[in-house]
Amino acid sequence: MVKLGPVFSVRHLLVLSLAINVSLMLTVIRERVKVEEILNMFSTKLQLATVSPSTGDGETTDNGEAIINLDHGDPTMYEKYWQRMGDKTTVVISGWQFTSYFSDPKNLCWFLEPELAEEVVRLHRVVGNAITKDYHIVVGTGSSQLFQAALYALSSDASEPMSVVSAAPYYSSYPVITDCLKSGLYKWEGDAQAFDKSGPYIELVTSPNNPDGFVRQSVVNRSGGILVHDLAYYWPQYTPITTPADHDLMLFTVSKTTGHAGMRIGWALVKDEIIARKIVKYIELSTIGVSKDSQLRAAKVLRAVSDSCGVAHPFKEETFFGFSHHSMESRWMLLREAVNRSGIFSLPEFTPGFCNFWNRVFEPLPAFAWLKCGDGIEDCESFLRGHKIWTRSGRYFGVSPSYVRISMLDRDRTFNLFVKRLSRIRSQRRMRLEHVD
Amino acid sequence: MVKLGPVFSVRHLLVLSLAINVSLMLTVIRERVKVEEILNMFSTKLQLATVSPSTGDGETTDNGEAIINLDHGDPTMYEKYWQRMGDKTTVVISGWQFTSYFSDPKNLCWFLEPELAEEVVRLHRVVGNAITKDYHIVVGTGSSQLFQAALYALSSDASEPMSVVSAAPYYSSYPVITDCLKSGLYKWEGDAQAFDKSGPYIELVTSPNNPDGFVRQSVVNRSGGILVHDLAYYWPQYTPITTPADHDLMLFTVSKTTGHAGMRIGWALVKDEIIARKIVKYIELSTIGVSKDSQLRAAKVLRAVSDSCGVAHPFKEETFFGFSHHSMESRWMLLREAVNRSGIFSLPEFTPGFCNFWNRVFEPLPAFAWLKCGDGIEDCESFLRGHKIWTRSGRYFGVSPSYVRISMLDRDRTFNLFVKRLSRIRSQRRMRLEHVD
Repeated sequence: MVKLGPVFSVRHLLVLSLAINVSLMLTVIRERVKVEEILNMFSTKLQLATVSPSTGDGETTDNGEAIINLDHGDPTMYEKYWQRMGDKTTVVISGWQFTSYFSDPKNLCWFLEPELAEEVVRLHRVVGNAITKDYHIVVGTGSSQLFQAALYALSSDASEPMSVVSAAPYYSSYPVITDCLKSGLYKWEGDAQAFDKSGPYIELVTSPNNPDGFVRQSVVNRSGGILVHDLAYYWPQYTPITTPADHDLMLFTVSKTTGHAGMRIGWALVKDEIIARKIVKYIELSTIGVSKDSQLRAAKVLRAVSDSCGVAHPFKEETFFGFSHHSMESRWMLLREAVNRSGIFSLPEFTPGFCNFWNRVFEPLPAFAWLKCGDGIEDCESFLRGHKIWTRSGRYFGVSPSYVRISMLDRDRTFNLFVKRLSRIRSQRRMRLEHVD
Repeated sequence: MVKLGPVFSVRHLLVLSLAINVSLMLTVIRERVKVEEILNMFSTKLQLATVSPSTGDGETTDNGEAIINLDHGDPTMYEKYWQRMGDKTTVVISGWQFTSYFSDPKNLCWFLEPELAEEVVRLHRVVGNAITKDYHIVVGTGSSQLFQAALYALSSDASEPMSVVSAAPYYSSYPVITDCLKSGLYKWEGDAQAFDKSGPYIELVTSPNNPDGFVRQSVVNRSGGILVHDLAYYWPQYTPITTPADHDLMLFTVSKTTGHAGMRIGWALVKDEIIARKIVKYIELSTIGVSKDSQLRAAKVLRAVSDSCGVAHPFKEETFFGFSHHSMESRWMLLREAVNRSGIFSLPEFTPGFCNFWNRVFEPLPAFAWLKCGDGIEDCESFLRGHKIWTRSGRYFGVSPSYVRISMLDRDRTFNLFVKRLSRIRSQRRMRLEHVD
């Protein structure tokens, strides 16, 4: 056996230790480079830069030239909250994931991702706005698709087209969507208040209502009617949560809950199994299921909303509903001020209600403002268009064009510009009075 | 000023160096923990574990009990390729991204993500299977939605329901989808070869055809007809690319191109602007656009496919089409062997064609096998169901139930089990002959 030399001297040990130091320093550098590379790979290179939201609160000088488009209900107000949350709701999906059509082959809704189902149940429990026990959950490509699926499910056995009605002002898309294919299963029959045909019918109850924000119940109130409850806005940033809803067929959407309209994710809570199966069938025929990627992301976002309710007092701005409720309160205050200053417009007045979620009384803060033009202006949409404010005329909602619907969910900059410009549109009469003063 | 002590001795330096050793080692450990944490944050915690694909090639012993479900065309075969590609197609989406309904407000298709449009154009150029210049690109929730949108767009001005036809065997979903809402705009009229009604009509030309894999052209061939070309399978893993298609209205889907069925992304190439606008309108009414998350992911995947064609010889397994073409070739070889061994079934025979992409001649390798039962078996679907092989009967495709459609795109394990089991189903006659031998 080869004999080892004498024990290392202190100098040898020092040299060895220094060598180890150099090696360790290189390792540290390599590890840091690795961290950078991973972050790069997962972030910059992968199109994080695609959207550059402009959520600045900065004051904007208004020369009256910029078009303010509040026609659609694009919920970009919420971007700011999700930016503040940083990576909490970041999703990472590998190339080989979610390739199959199927999410959960044994489930009635075979294309529903189980974790989205879980988060839907949890969020309804946290908020207390709907019962989910003994309900079937069906996911859809937004609640528009679920609305069509519901019409199909409720009318597929009908011998002649079933009447579809909703009390005016009703959501402007209902008539167009219902009649676009001239279906032999169902037919738009307009304002539910004026509906007097005999036979079975489907009544759409949107509560709180789009466009006017009022809480609603069915109005036809006779046998043979089937109700579809569109509860897209039954969330505590918009309206007092008075009771957990337990209707036969209820529709919800991520767009209006968390502001993620681009995901195109909605869900239906359905009591009857046969109806639920038919809704699933329609979505199978229409789009063979629903994007898995967006379902995964929606689950992540709903989870963050529920989580945020648990960690801070719900009223704090860190919680999702705290942030959004405060935003809606301040926006409605600004809007009412602008309307008062102008003297030409009016807004609905709401009765305050006790909210079980906030544990206090408050007045509804709808996602749309339902504005009425006074001063003898008959066509409010055209009038506002003259001021480069784009809105949607009351006539699309089955009522007078003296009304318009205005989105309250745009980015701060757009909203602030809007209230500023609106407040400057003065009533001729008030201007004369101010002149006399 | 305090005077410093004598110069450090070698021992002092050793102690200092050892201390630095320890500190650096701790830093290395911290950095590694950081790497782990980042990977965890971006992976494990974020549901990477949801799907656990079983793509193993391992031999499976078949006791004849397991159900082999090849009814649907679920393209899970491709998982293996995307797993090999590791993080190349991983997408990361932050909570605040893609919240808006709008992707590109100035584009005719306002809900189309510009980078998806770019990658669609690029991939068609790389493969040479379709012209995109002077075409409008419309994205849809899979090509099923685009098919419905096309029917709407082509018939919305019709005074009475337009006839919709396709040569049998036709895609089994065409009749059901066309008639599910009893539309007053269009109506399923069955086999195009038997169609003799006057007036305008829409002919669906699926090429290569689902279910039988043959290249097709329109068959009605008289004026007043509008063609919709479903080119879902016109990709070089399935069929020779003979010419860049330039039809008026062509449909494609990510599901069959790259295997990402769960994304629900398809696209239409549309020559006429008015038709394109109507297709967009339908998708607006039906689902208010298409999941942004899946569009982003589809863009990433299509980019990887095009990139892979550039870096290696296309025939290498590193390229997407190399991998998938080889897979299809080996599967068809195995299937034909099993069919020969069995002696009870037959398969279509295809004429080889010159492929401009591969620059060589090959025989079509369809995504579905169109199997015919012999031996006097009238109902092939029931017969195979007796052997726990689930397929789709010819009667859904407008032809005899002696045919079935079988997916060729399932995972290796399922496919291998299938050919093994099929090869053991022996013709009674052959068994007798073998017995005599």
